[in-house]
Amino acid sequence: MAKPNHKNRILDAGLEVFYQQGFHGSGVQDVVDHAEVPKGSFYNHFKSKQALGLEVLETYWNAGNGARAELRSTNKSPLKRIDRHLAALGYDKNGCLIGNFSAELAGIEEFRSRISELFESWKSEVAACIREGHEDGSIRDDAKAEDLAEFIVEGMQGAQLKAKIEQDPAVVARFRKSIQLFLTAP
Amino acid sequence: MAKPNHKNRILDAGLEVFYQQGFHGSGVQDVVDHAEVPKGSFYNHFKSKQALGLEVLETYWNAGNGARAELRSTNKSPLKRIDRHLAALGYDKNGCLIGNFSAELAGIEEFRSRISELFESWKSEVAACIREGHEDGSIRDDAKAEDLAEFIVEGMQGAQLKAKIEQDPAVVARFRKSIQLFLTAP
Repeated sequence: MAKPNHKNRILDAGLEVFYQQGFHGSGVQDVVDHAEVPKGSFYNHFKSKQALGLEVLETYWNAGNGARAELRSTNKSPLKRIDRHLAALGYDKNGCLIGNFSAELAGIEEFRSRISELFESWKSEVAACIREGHEDGSIRDDAKAEDLAEFIVEGMQGAQLKAKIEQDPAVVARFRKSIQLFLTAP
Repeated sequence: MAKPNHKNRILDAGLEVFYQQGFHGSGVQDVVDHAEVPKGSFYNHFKSKQALGLEVLETYWNAGNGARAELRSTNKSPLKRIDRHLAALGYDKNGCLIGNFSAELAGIEEFRSRISELFESWKSEVAACIREGHEDGSIRDDAKAEDLAEFIVEGMQGAQLKAKIEQDPAVVARFRKSIQLFLTAP
């Protein structure tokens, strides 16, 4: 059986370590220890801890593809799809890596600009689903789809952050319920 | 004129440095450099960087007293008070220190438990204002005051985080508008 290559092992370890300990809270040594690869191997694959951090961000984002696909499952109502999307993003005791990196790394332009693009992309997918709810009359239309989508996206960040502080998945469940209440057309 | 004492200078510097660079992103040396006091002086006043971090959290929370007082200015409607409260918390390019510490330090029990108490206290003050809006019929009553308050508090965290990524105060302004829309009784 082929051994998983060192680059992938470092990437997986980076995701785990940065997610649990934060970016500044962990060093290259923590990552290579966790990956069980020699430190020299790290620099064969990544220029720096920051380069790894940027790849970790992409890995985490791509892991959300399934959750975002819920927004497009056309055999369900737009409201139901938004709820299933948020449920799929769900709860993790470490919060959301994108939120964590936002809090910690917004001062580093390469992180800030990439996270901004990811938020924009996420918001567009939510807005497209809301627009369908505007057309079929199920979602309130006294606000623009983009503004409602932004509210959901940033609210979910806040809910995941608060759930991390409470160490309680019920925070995210209550958030989902409030979003349904907010969006439903009168 | 009396020289401001070293403890206060370290506390002010700690707030500034942790707010800008994060807790793990800065060291005691950064704080004493910023405070312009000798490093030895730090340990006369604080047991550790963590001890300073916990005091910085209290300082930041207390700086929000004025913003929370808006919730109790009884000559204004509950909806207006909530809006003025969120406006007073407002935008800072560094986001909210409590949110930043939540993202970065939830794994350290002393920070996690104290931040949880602060969120609870903040939520109670918002909920009290919403309850008045339930009584006078101005705020939607198809959800409990506590759940609406939680939604506002965590949503504001998310809005401040997103505003930090966009470096744009308009994110918080849009959030305030959405909250008014959500809360207003039909």
